[in-house]
Amino acid sequence: MADLHQRLIRLRPIGVVHSPFRVREDIDPRRNIRRDGFRDVRGELEIDPAYAAGLRDIGGFSHLIVLFAFHKSGPGHLLVKPPSETRKRGVFSTRSPHRPNPLGMTIVRLLGRRGNVLKVSGIDMLEGTPILDIKPYTSRDSRRNVRRGWMRRSVLNR
Amino acid sequence: MADLHQRLIRLRPIGVVHSPFRVREDIDPRRNIRRDGFRDVRGELEIDPAYAAGLRDIGGFSHLIVLFAFHKSGPGHLLVKPPSETRKRGVFSTRSPHRPNPLGMTIVRLLGRRGNVLKVSGIDMLEGTPILDIKPYTSRDSRRNVRRGWMRRSVLNR
Repeated sequence: MADLHQRLIRLRPIGVVHSPFRVREDIDPRRNIRRDGFRDVRGELEIDPAYAAGLRDIGGFSHLIVLFAFHKSGPGHLLVKPPSETRKRGVFSTRSPHRPNPLGMTIVRLLGRRGNVLKVSGIDMLEGTPILDIKPYTSRDSRRNVRRGWMRRSVLNR
Repeated sequence: MADLHQRLIRLRPIGVVHSPFRVREDIDPRRNIRRDGFRDVRGELEIDPAYAAGLRDIGGFSHLIVLFAFHKSGPGHLLVKPPSETRKRGVFSTRSPHRPNPLGMTIVRLLGRRGNVLKVSGIDMLEGTPILDIKPYTSRDSRRNVRRGWMRRSVLNR
């Protein structure tokens, strides 16, 4: 595995998130209480016009996977304390932004498209978040009978 | 959005996928016929020991989100022709590896852990694929009543 360390992966943002949340403190922590806490949060995915041709056919999908960079997260950690938790958890068993690679993933509902701008709901990202990729959500991404480890007693999954 | 273009995101692999598929041609295309075509494919996620502390608590989760680099995909395209399709589609409405940013996402089932190695099923990646992040799959990631655009008539979703 040694040679893997040498190989940096370089990514270029394809667009930017427009969100009602300007800073972390704009997010009411009660949104995390419910499973659908962000369902009604609307925003836009503004795709760089240079990449807009890649949006062809996207209007037929109800849900999109957005991969983005946590651009305000600072350095990554291996152990993190989730909100409303008292114990530190391994970062790969959390959705914390403070990860070795600051990658985020959120599933949004596609409401409409105007040229290079996608109107969506389900936004939990901050304004200005760099978008790295958009993928269609398919039935393969929907799993049931999910066991949720330490989150099972957490407010995050009610 | 102009300043976004200047800002490259640099990621360092945290581990590597071990898969029965050495090269693309090892993947029987019939696996794509069924929604659960990869469900029985077992493999391992070998995490760099330097990051293994981040795996704490992961054993409680049944499903994991794996973000990885398509390391064999070559240059990205904005329009791609999916297997068994005749028309080119916008790349962001496909799961093609030939993307502007070569990021992949697969949901796997966690079967067990031995130190820094996770045994999983649901592998559709090639041997040696660099792992960029692992996240727990939660009920927020499971959506129903999904509309699947051009894929609805495709074998990919049967």
